[in-house]
Amino acid sequence: MREVYLDNTASAPLLPEVREAMMPYLGDIFGNPSSLHNWGDGAREAMEAARGQVAQLIGASTDEMIFTGSGTESNNLAIKGLALAQQNKGKHVVVSAIEHFSVLHSARTLAKWGFEVSEVPVDKYGAVDPDDVRRNLRDDTVLVSIMHANGEVGTIQPIGEIAAVTRERKVLFHTDAVATAGTIPINVTEVGVDALSLAANQFYGPKGVGALWVRKGARIIPLLDGGIQEEGRRAGTENVPAIVGLGKAAELAKAHMTERMKRLSGLRDRLLREVPERIEHVVVTGHPRNRLPGHASFCVEFIEGESMLMLLSSKRIAVSSGSACTSRALKASHVLIAMGLSHEIAQGSILFTIGIDNTDQDMDYVLETMPPVVDRLRQMSPLYARFTKASKGGN
Amino acid sequence: MREVYLDNTASAPLLPEVREAMMPYLGDIFGNPSSLHNWGDGAREAMEAARGQVAQLIGASTDEMIFTGSGTESNNLAIKGLALAQQNKGKHVVVSAIEHFSVLHSARTLAKWGFEVSEVPVDKYGAVDPDDVRRNLRDDTVLVSIMHANGEVGTIQPIGEIAAVTRERKVLFHTDAVATAGTIPINVTEVGVDALSLAANQFYGPKGVGALWVRKGARIIPLLDGGIQEEGRRAGTENVPAIVGLGKAAELAKAHMTERMKRLSGLRDRLLREVPERIEHVVVTGHPRNRLPGHASFCVEFIEGESMLMLLSSKRIAVSSGSACTSRALKASHVLIAMGLSHEIAQGSILFTIGIDNTDQDMDYVLETMPPVVDRLRQMSPLYARFTKASKGGN
Repeated sequence: MREVYLDNTASAPLLPEVREAMMPYLGDIFGNPSSLHNWGDGAREAMEAARGQVAQLIGASTDEMIFTGSGTESNNLAIKGLALAQQNKGKHVVVSAIEHFSVLHSARTLAKWGFEVSEVPVDKYGAVDPDDVRRNLRDDTVLVSIMHANGEVGTIQPIGEIAAVTRERKVLFHTDAVATAGTIPINVTEVGVDALSLAANQFYGPKGVGALWVRKGARIIPLLDGGIQEEGRRAGTENVPAIVGLGKAAELAKAHMTERMKRLSGLRDRLLREVPERIEHVVVTGHPRNRLPGHASFCVEFIEGESMLMLLSSKRIAVSSGSACTSRALKASHVLIAMGLSHEIAQGSILFTIGIDNTDQDMDYVLETMPPVVDRLRQMSPLYARFTKASKGGN
Repeated sequence: MREVYLDNTASAPLLPEVREAMMPYLGDIFGNPSSLHNWGDGAREAMEAARGQVAQLIGASTDEMIFTGSGTESNNLAIKGLALAQQNKGKHVVVSAIEHFSVLHSARTLAKWGFEVSEVPVDKYGAVDPDDVRRNLRDDTVLVSIMHANGEVGTIQPIGEIAAVTRERKVLFHTDAVATAGTIPINVTEVGVDALSLAANQFYGPKGVGALWVRKGARIIPLLDGGIQEEGRRAGTENVPAIVGLGKAAELAKAHMTERMKRLSGLRDRLLREVPERIEHVVVTGHPRNRLPGHASFCVEFIEGESMLMLLSSKRIAVSSGSACTSRALKASHVLIAMGLSHEIAQGSILFTIGIDNTDQDMDYVLETMPPVVDRLRQMSPLYARFTKASKGGN
């Protein structure tokens, strides 16, 4: 049976070149980059080379890059660290309603610490209106955090326009680019953000490593206290092999971005077009055009996303029904609800995140396999029975 | 030229068996443990097996183990998370004066948040007196954190006796066991602590992964907000390869602990005995007997530890002059100062941390190489010139 992995946002395979780049640092070059003796040199040089590779990916300066342990940590450090560093100026932060929980729950923690948090709504495509950001700014606003793209519905936000608003008001703007850095172009200088989170495992790099870029001059309070690693902004022995892997993945992402985007968006467009053609009562979620290249998401009415996911898994197709970070919570997605979908429809959420190894044949297999799976689930669905009865009654 | 690496606390090589255990998770088994489909299963099972291996190492229950990104993160989570969770009961914490900065600076952060922090002193060997802990307890004390052993001077603390004090007063007791877990036996049930930090890179496991064990029933506020990984106590995609490596390293550490301890303490005792025999004006730092098996530390008078480190590095010997986490800060160690050493003497700190691959021949080479290095440095030292002049004058 064909195996088709379409859950690359939850986890993507490590590129062989990335693994190769990491191997020496899991072997002979095991020194601590902070060591003063020669054994630290190789590790330190590799780490600084990786810092350059990551900086290049996003058009940043090398010394503004803080390595972290994950995208989640980058977001926590950004939200808490930038807000706390400015609390004498004000205690108000603005986020969108569809941020990843690492941003939303960090903001909730700030609220426990006496901050006020405003949530900017999104439209039915999951897009933020920069004017809504403007309307939420106050004299005591110290931080705005709007994601570059949403991992659940793929919608890309107008962060350049939002940055124009925040700059005018001299408010720091952080963007969670975990879903986009390494996938679509972003240049922090051109776009005018002040801080940006990214994670290696979103572009075929290793788990356990991320980065937070913070514009020079912006103060940040560390989340992890201790040693003076990362210029005192993130304590803990540096995870050299993972950092080297992040660097290599960033280099490859930059080199192959155009071709990857072209391939992925071709496959994506097939799913976006053909899934609703082949299955009745399917809603595309997220923006029809302005979305991540490998990202196709839907709500399939009258069924539960998790059941569909399990049945597809038994056919050797891996998909997701939302964010892996909360998949085991089995709650309706806050993203879909914020976009105005009903709980009932949001339940049928299904998410394909295409990887660079996927092929047209993979899409064929998905498009063949999915309709009977949906049929089978609907046959067991009391909601669907009621719906068809009502429809027939109406004839 | 022989190469002798004696800085295993700063960073130790990965055991080949640990690397082998990690490899599948840097390859085909790349799924996200939180995924509901089959691709997550292998990753999840491996992660839970590792949780069991780590729990076994410290005599804990599997479901009480939180994986983190480092020993530093474990300590930050313990100090901040346990204190914040109890702040309605009181806002006083007790630490020792010689804790690692990840504990001390976390306590300093608590102080900014309105907590009071008491520092328990140590004796000239770097040992905490349990009666001093008792004297520092107040009605509003909610947390005591005393390390199991100090990585700079090797002294092992009487944490069993300290636990008896904290239990009597019903105060939570966290121990930073980063220097000991995987190196010397510790059983959390027998010793009676409530929380314990450990890090894989201290016992030939990978960088970028640690664990915090927290006794069931003890509430903890997460440091990293976001998804519901680790039972909602530590958000972020789980670093499966590193976690598997931690598990394997824990298993091997437990299996080989007795033989490793015997070997290492034999080599250590040679250094502790012969370095002061071969070099005048050398002070052993830390406890003469009650110390980590592979740990020999000294202060060499009239010279600077960093210069000695650099010269030894040029002879292909890797040592440290203190904690790698702060080595680039080039300040006198807070540990040595707390033990009552003068800044002048503390400057000459040198630290050998012996690894399981070191041999008697390595010690020979160190014991031959070190005296002329010290001589050379002393010849350049104005302090030493003054001292010898004064001594001669006194004859």
